[in-house]
Amino acid sequence: MPEFVMLERDAGVATVTLNRPEKLNALTKPLWRELGEAMRQLSDDDSVRCVVVRGAGEKSFSPGNDISEFRTERANKAQAIRYGQVMRDTLQALEQCRHPVVAQIHGICVGGGLEIASLCDLRICGESSRFGVPIKNLGLVMSYHELAPLVALVGPGIAREILLEGRVFGAQEALAKGLVTRVVPDDQVAEEVRATVQRIVEGAPLAARWHKAFIRRIQEPEPISDAEHETCFDCFDTEDFREGYDAFLAKRKPAFRAL
Amino acid sequence: MPEFVMLERDAGVATVTLNRPEKLNALTKPLWRELGEAMRQLSDDDSVRCVVVRGAGEKSFSPGNDISEFRTERANKAQAIRYGQVMRDTLQALEQCRHPVVAQIHGICVGGGLEIASLCDLRICGESSRFGVPIKNLGLVMSYHELAPLVALVGPGIAREILLEGRVFGAQEALAKGLVTRVVPDDQVAEEVRATVQRIVEGAPLAARWHKAFIRRIQEPEPISDAEHETCFDCFDTEDFREGYDAFLAKRKPAFRAL
Amino acid sequence: MPEFVMLERDAGVATVTLNRPEKLNALTKPLWRELGEAMRQLSDDDSVRCVVVRGAGEKSFSPGNDISEFRTERANKAQAIRYGQVMRDTLQALEQCRHPVVAQIHGICVGGGLEIASLCDLRICGESSRFGVPIKNLGLVMSYHELAPLVALVGPGIAREILLEGRVFGAQEALAKGLVTRVVPDDQVAEEVRATVQRIVEGAPLAARWHKAFIRRIQEPEPISDAEHETCFDCFDTEDFREGYDAFLAKRKPAFRAL
Repeated sequence: MPEFVMLERDAGVATVTLNRPEKLNALTKPLWRELGEAMRQLSDDDSVRCVVVRGAGEKSFSPGNDISEFRTERANKAQAIRYGQVMRDTLQALEQCRHPVVAQIHGICVGGGLEIASLCDLRICGESSRFGVPIKNLGLVMSYHELAPLVALVGPGIAREILLEGRVFGAQEALAKGLVTRVVPDDQVAEEVRATVQRIVEGAPLAARWHKAFIRRIQEPEPISDAEHETCFDCFDTEDFREGYDAFLAKRKPAFRAL
Repeated sequence: MPEFVMLERDAGVATVTLNRPEKLNALTKPLWRELGEAMRQLSDDDSVRCVVVRGAGEKSFSPGNDISEFRTERANKAQAIRYGQVMRDTLQALEQCRHPVVAQIHGICVGGGLEIASLCDLRICGESSRFGVPIKNLGLVMSYHELAPLVALVGPGIAREILLEGRVFGAQEALAKGLVTRVVPDDQVAEEVRATVQRIVEGAPLAARWHKAFIRRIQEPEPISDAEHETCFDCFDTEDFREGYDAFLAKRKPAFRAL
Repeated sequence: MPEFVMLERDAGVATVTLNRPEKLNALTKPLWRELGEAMRQLSDDDSVRCVVVRGAGEKSFSPGNDISEFRTERANKAQAIRYGQVMRDTLQALEQCRHPVVAQIHGICVGGGLEIASLCDLRICGESSRFGVPIKNLGLVMSYHELAPLVALVGPGIAREILLEGRVFGAQEALAKGLVTRVVPDDQVAEEVRATVQRIVEGAPLAARWHKAFIRRIQEPEPISDAEHETCFDCFDTEDFREGYDAFLAKRKPAFRAL
């Protein structure tokens, strides 16, 4: 039974909660491991339409890794490599999740919390949210697997600013930096996430999965082969396309079934 | 004779008009083919200084592919691959056009319309323009060749938002997302495009062609060879450089001849 | 003795000044060479914590290459290749500087001046600063090594706009384009740079160097090897990590020593 990550399902929408509210959802090795397991389980589940990742409560998404673990789990390079392998597996599970993932960000979203959010597809936060990666104050660095999603999201220039200066900054600056998708008043974050998830799940699930996979593929340096290009037309042989087309002509909402 | 794409020339400036105003310039297979032919013809023409791409009328740039064609031209994967090949050739012709291309966007710029605009060098629109890719509502996807220019323009994060959520949104949001170059009042779009084209054609045509080619090349993963790097200095042996230099010293406007 | 680049040191902070104020700090072949030498010397110096690059005076960072040199140094391709080699070496020295580099931008930042600024890690300018690359008016182009940092900073779409249109534009537009990190009132540029440098040098120097190196590495197309990934955990065996951790627990400022 997971202790630190709560997983709830409401029809096709899964909510994954980083669940250490007494510590503002600071991340620990078992929490990272449970988060990876939850994401892999959801990714494999064909009935999932959208995943929401959030922190427990409304004070914090996550402030990053729990400092209290350093003494026992990350006291030197050898330990840190093992800890880093757990983080890497989880970051990979987030990146490779087949379904759309929305980060619901209340409050603090810093360090490892921002790494998790960076790997979600959309990031919705409140006006009072705070962002940053002040890891340089501990004498530590983000590893390649933590850093690459941030660079992909905001570009190398802004990534350098965030890491070298180490400031913690507000939601409007995060929006201007391209770090979040949307900022709303604090008391409307949950409602905006709900409406966004609704827009996502009204679309064809296979189209969402393909779009995510294609955008990941485009970022790899190898050229797209003709065979890969042909898979882009598989959608025309799906039942969902026939449903979408019929619904469009009939001016009704389509009922997609991921078929 | 092209039926669906109108091509006009005014000295070195060519205007390519998506010309199905009764359908808001919805795209069809013959229109895609004619657009590709027009772009290849203009690209090969050394007398061209700038190309403007626009939709007929001021209601719409283009709302994307015409749904009425799906029954006969895109009813299954095999048909869609053939249709997709026509789109791919045209998108490639847009991308490889040697001359600067400005998208003059009035009104709707959605789906395939946005794909065309994404491959122009500058995008100028009015305050009431609308953007988006709601293809997920039909159960369909953008293929790699449609998607890559969007990802190059706005990055993978915003591309995921646009495709997964499928919202149609306004000009100011498009500007904030980096999807358009400039937003002006609706009744000033044509004038702003005219002034922009003027700024472009006052520059040396060879410099424009080289800059376009170099920026395309930089996005490829292969390292730039020394031989390629040396071509960057060919400009110093052109007549236009001598003209530009003399004009600068004489404080007059240069008269470039693409030589 | 350098003539055109002034190098000052104040503890770990080095200030490099493009020093031709009578010419608004226009760049010449010897200035480029001296700038490269200064950057390489500072990069090799383990006592450096941060470098500030600025122009002499408060009218101009730099307007780019001095036109007066064209007659003798860049009159044809062969000369321009030799000149370009000097620029290339210096741009590379800027890019490869191990320490954080902040551009302090007063006034004009155009052409080669913008190229230098693009290779700094943060760019702070005043409200009246002006940016652009109007090189097309001379019939010339940016070479691959000048262009690549601009494309990395603002993306291919905005790079095309800047080069094809050749406009010179203001600080707020530069900020919206992602060309500068921060815009402040003209009389607060020096103070904001001072505060930014302070935030940078309060962090662990090795973390800054690693972060810079990692972000550069991520932009290369080759996949990160496991051995490279393991170097990300070297920081856990540094004295500075122990200092950072102890200081965090003691709620005091850490005193890092780059060890």
